[in-house]
This record gives sequence, structure tokens and C-alpha cells, in this order.
Amino acid sequence: MTRACEGRYAHPMPDSRETTLDLDPKYDAAGLITAVATDRNTGELLMLAHMNAEALKLTVETGAAHFWSRSRAALWKKGETSGNILHVTEIRIDCDQDAVWLIVDPVGPACHTGARSCFYRRIEGDRLALVE
Amino acid sequence: MTRACEGRYAHPMPDSRETTLDLDPKYDAAGLITAVATDRNTGELLMLAHMNAEALKLTVETGAAHFWSRSRAALWKKGETSGNILHVTEIRIDCDQDAVWLIVDPVGPACHTGARSCFYRRIEGDRLALVE
Repeated sequence: MTRACEGRYAHPMPDSRETTLDLDPKYDAAGLITAVATDRNTGELLMLAHMNAEALKLTVETGAAHFWSRSRAALWKKGETSGNILHVTEIRIDCDQDAVWLIVDPVGPACHTGARSCFYRRIEGDRLALVE
Repeated sequence: MTRACEGRYAHPMPDSRETTLDLDPKYDAAGLITAVATDRNTGELLMLAHMNAEALKLTVETGAAHFWSRSRAALWKKGETSGNILHVTEIRIDCDQDAVWLIVDPVGPACHTGARSCFYRRIEGDRLALVE
């Protein structure tokens, strides 16, 4: 049966990435997947960044969030200089395996601006308002 | 003063996108920003998708999540065919304005697979485990 598929072509069979229990990340042309971190206690979305295969491997192995910095073209252990480590308590992956969700205990502010979360502004029409 | 910047070059002045209260999304080369939806009640990460300027505008104006489908190259109102609308209660934008966080009340499953969330598998080493 063709299933109702939103945001992609309808297909007669589900993509194997959706059903497998093998980790099989779907890296983009730059070798990256998207990573989103939320606070385990508050549920707040803290940050969004990218991972290459090495960053994902190190995150799984060490329990500290690692990313790939696209601007610096370098592997990046979050908090390596600031001390604001993200301790990863659980990692989930989405249906097509091109995004991961890190459930974390943050040591300090997650945003390089010093804000607890990078998402410190709310959209109100075409303006923004600081949250809190 | 140069501030500690993780994941990007250190810079002497903060990017104006970080401090402004003007909505000024930083679209990528394809004209897209990343959008993440979490459930207002449970805090669960439901899905990750992309928006072009029109999708963001329609989401702000209508309160129903709209995205840009990269595979179909088309604007996409989430739930238009399935009925599984995401009612958006708040939209936040991140420091460099290339990602938005939608806090939503979902009508039904957010994932095209029928799962409540696209993130229905946990990474355990190089294997995945179904959540719940």
C-alpha cells in the first residue's frame, strides 16, 4: 500500500532507514547531519548544530556533545574552551536518519552569546522579543 | 573585547543578527532555514524540517506550521492531507537566525510513518532501539 507521505514523494515501501535498527546516518553532500540539543530537565531547545561521522562517534563514545563547525571546518567539542559541556543522556535519530536529538544536562549556557539557550528571542510578526 | 565563540570564528563585535530585534532570517544558498518542532505539553522533539521565507511567513500568519519540502521542491502545509496539523503556539529564532523553534500543539502523529515523533529510535552504540 502507498502510505500518505508528507514532505516527500509517496513511495510503495518505507525507506529501509525508517525501519532498520542499524545506525545508518544519511549524511548530506558535506558529510553532515543536523543535531538538536534539548535540556533534559526543562525540555528547552538549547541549540542546533551539525555533526559529521566523527562528531557523532565521539558523542556516542564519550557522552559529551561534539559537533562539526562549518565556519571553522573543524571538529568541535562543545565546551572545550568555555567549560560549558553538554552531557548527553540520550541520543535519538529521526525517521530518515538525517537528524539527531541530544537530550542533555548542560553545565552552563549553551549559546556562545552567554544565553542559556540560543533561542532567546520570540518571533512576533516581523519583530523579535527577548524571552524572559 | 573578543568574546569566546564556539563553533565559529572569534570576532570583535557580535553579529548584528544576534542582538537585533528585527526578524532577519539567514537563509542558506537554497533559501532555507531549519525548523524544529517540539510538543508544548510534553517537550518532546517531534520533527525537523526546513522553511523558505514563504513557509515562515505563512506559519507566522496562520499559526499552522508550513515547511518547504526539499524532495518535492514545494511549499507544504503540515497536515494538509493527513489532518495532522501542528498548531504553533510560539516561534523562537536562534542567535544567528538560521533556525527556528516551533512550540506546537500537534493534532495527531507528527511523523509520516505514523509515529508521534520522528525521533522514535534511540542510538545505542551502532544500533538503534525503539523508544516505548
